[in-house]
Amino acid sequence: MVTMDEIVSLCKRRGFIFQSSEIYGGLNSCWDYGPLGVEMKNNIKRLWWKANVQLRDDVVGLDSSILMNPKVWEASGHLSNFADPMADCKVCKKRWRADQLSEYKCPECGGELTEARMFNLMFKTFMGPVEDESAVVYLRPETAQGIFVNFLNVQQTMRKKLPFGIAQIGKSFRNEITPGNFIFRTREFEQMEIEYFVKPGTDEYWHKHWIEQRINWYYKLGIKKENIRIREHGKDELAHYAKACVDIEYLFPMGWSELEGIANRTDFDLSRHQEYSGQNLTYFDDETKQRYIPYVIEPSAGVDRSFLAFLVDAYENQKIDENDSRIVLHLHPAIAPVKAGVFPLLKREELVKKAKEIYNNLKYKWIVQYDESGSIGKRYRRQDEIGTPFGITVDYQTLEDNTVTIRDRDTMEQVRVHIEEIIPYLEEKIEVKF
Amino acid sequence: MVTMDEIVSLCKRRGFIFQSSEIYGGLNSCWDYGPLGVEMKNNIKRLWWKANVQLRDDVVGLDSSILMNPKVWEASGHLSNFADPMADCKVCKKRWRADQLSEYKCPECGGELTEARMFNLMFKTFMGPVEDESAVVYLRPETAQGIFVNFLNVQQTMRKKLPFGIAQIGKSFRNEITPGNFIFRTREFEQMEIEYFVKPGTDEYWHKHWIEQRINWYYKLGIKKENIRIREHGKDELAHYAKACVDIEYLFPMGWSELEGIANRTDFDLSRHQEYSGQNLTYFDDETKQRYIPYVIEPSAGVDRSFLAFLVDAYENQKIDENDSRIVLHLHPAIAPVKAGVFPLLKREELVKKAKEIYNNLKYKWIVQYDESGSIGKRYRRQDEIGTPFGITVDYQTLEDNTVTIRDRDTMEQVRVHIEEIIPYLEEKIEVKF
Repeated sequence: MVTMDEIVSLCKRRGFIFQSSEIYGGLNSCWDYGPLGVEMKNNIKRLWWKANVQLRDDVVGLDSSILMNPKVWEASGHLSNFADPMADCKVCKKRWRADQLSEYKCPECGGELTEARMFNLMFKTFMGPVEDESAVVYLRPETAQGIFVNFLNVQQTMRKKLPFGIAQIGKSFRNEITPGNFIFRTREFEQMEIEYFVKPGTDEYWHKHWIEQRINWYYKLGIKKENIRIREHGKDELAHYAKACVDIEYLFPMGWSELEGIANRTDFDLSRHQEYSGQNLTYFDDETKQRYIPYVIEPSAGVDRSFLAFLVDAYENQKIDENDSRIVLHLHPAIAPVKAGVFPLLKREELVKKAKEIYNNLKYKWIVQYDESGSIGKRYRRQDEIGTPFGITVDYQTLEDNTVTIRDRDTMEQVRVHIEEIIPYLEEKIEVKF
Repeated sequence: MVTMDEIVSLCKRRGFIFQSSEIYGGLNSCWDYGPLGVEMKNNIKRLWWKANVQLRDDVVGLDSSILMNPKVWEASGHLSNFADPMADCKVCKKRWRADQLSEYKCPECGGELTEARMFNLMFKTFMGPVEDESAVVYLRPETAQGIFVNFLNVQQTMRKKLPFGIAQIGKSFRNEITPGNFIFRTREFEQMEIEYFVKPGTDEYWHKHWIEQRINWYYKLGIKKENIRIREHGKDELAHYAKACVDIEYLFPMGWSELEGIANRTDFDLSRHQEYSGQNLTYFDDETKQRYIPYVIEPSAGVDRSFLAFLVDAYENQKIDENDSRIVLHLHPAIAPVKAGVFPLLKREELVKKAKEIYNNLKYKWIVQYDESGSIGKRYRRQDEIGTPFGITVDYQTLEDNTVTIRDRDTMEQVRVHIEEIIPYLEEKIEVKF
């Protein structure tokens, strides 16, 4: 299996992910997506949006702000509950998460620890020119609450009936004590969340529905089935607001870890916001003529974790024969940052001209690369390493019959295709049938 | 001309933009994009990315983190210079921006003011569990610096030669003293920036190139030419890092205001980062065999401001005849949040079935809406108000010859089109020829 070091090294070498502020020594657990990383990340976000918003009549989107009225976090419980227990070493002064220590002494120097104190994980800042308590606002620790406080606005303006959902993609911030594992746990991260509002009593049905939907999304995008598993939370580990929660776990290099959580949050959030805001957040059910607060099913995925899972799943250091090997990313064509490489077989004027024509035509549809430097074999391998599914080569036969070769990244086999058939050929393989 | 109140009201009524945390009384100058708003905003971002990254061989993308090493802001000058002068009223205690006062007394109560003090506009927070000076980090006030610190990483991994650019879309934060005008000036906002690196001496040529490119982008997306103008900064208003700067201004309801700035930042930023990081940020020019620090041209646009400009430009309260009027958004089809409404003429089983078939087919390509409630005229008007360019109606003739009517939002004229021709018909009008 691929190691995290191999992934980090590929990411840096080929422009997927760089350390943030690297020329200044970085910033702990912050990462920048490079030219290929941003394309791949955008693909993941678009495919999530397409499956969960565009194709569903019962889900609409939202993009709420990162800074919110602090009362939101009182109501949600984050101000009082979103905290980890921390203990300091009295000798070396290092700080530890008390609930992650197997013995109650400093893992570094063995020194005695202070009593554990709760440390809130929300980033705090000040809005306006005065830095006092009245100016405190927080960076949201989850996108979910932005959805809850807009429940009525969205339901009414979009004339939605239950069941319906609101989906959001956006940055969240958690001041984690122990971030790590590359982009797996970071202090600044991106979420893809749906809050799906249902009639109480139908919540278990819809919980199952969403678990199925979400697993299928990963399968359809090529994640290997043996690397995905479901883990149901025990009663003792359930968050205070949840009736049930299921994690979709992925077999990362550091072991099975959470890729996405799908929780049954009951009516906890809307009830709390009704209580704290004094606004009536009930829904009037036309059929039963009753008013009630809906239950909520929440599929909550991490963009960065999905990114990492897709990369890990796709990575292969492939031995081709005794003397030859290649690094190849078997990414689903829809996720691959570059859809095709376009190459003149040799750097001859007629071939170059034709190849550039094809490239200039394809780029209206997709991110594609033109490359004329080095042997054709080397150019194929460069594209293999970044997961480009198709290599389109213009050779002398092209000049005669307007056909090109299209090389498949995974099988390395080539087919001859007429120039006018390139787009439909690629389209058919790139499009995902959700 | 449309007033800001009309725009705000439409945005709230139809789910484009809501006040952030509205049920808690809002949060000053923060806004949430609703179901239609997020689609339109995503369209704007995608069209910017397509024109400036996907279609250009000389520009690649980036997505750097919001939290950066604080040394970045020392080097960039933001820690010392990014500040406004503030004065407090000694009587009523209100705080004012000293440089915006015409007389030096409180505009509210006439009281005497304190001396002006500089107030830094960066939002400050603490990373890690200890809230002391060593833990201070800032929310980035611009996406630009994330590009500069990645200049070498990107140039090398992507094997780029000058001139080339790095483009980024992302959130920035400025603790403005006087935010306002709806989404025009907010404390949390989204930028679309390009840093285009060029050989010194060619910078004036490229500055002109980008001014032209960027204006044409707005024109191609349908902004009226009479509502756009160019304003060159006078020597006295130039930022300390800029050799020249041109604003693209739009005629907003509150008057001509900056939509986008295009600055010649010279080698200021890279030189400063070289000095403060100790890293060699020069570029080796293969042709001249010289090493130098590139100059930078920066087209910097606001996503939210573009959004506002597109809305304002498209809004019309149109008198149709003595007794009839409509609100219509003449948005470019590529920007419109919903591409088509699909309607059965009447709520009859055969018509509904056919209309749903068409809807289910179209939604694989675009955001579309199905609507069967109310008269067909009312349904058209509902779509007019949100700028949906096409109304597709299934009537009795459809059942005979598989044709539908497609109504044009602007002319309100209808054409009959075969069902199989709907997608190509729409595609041709939605696609932008950059």
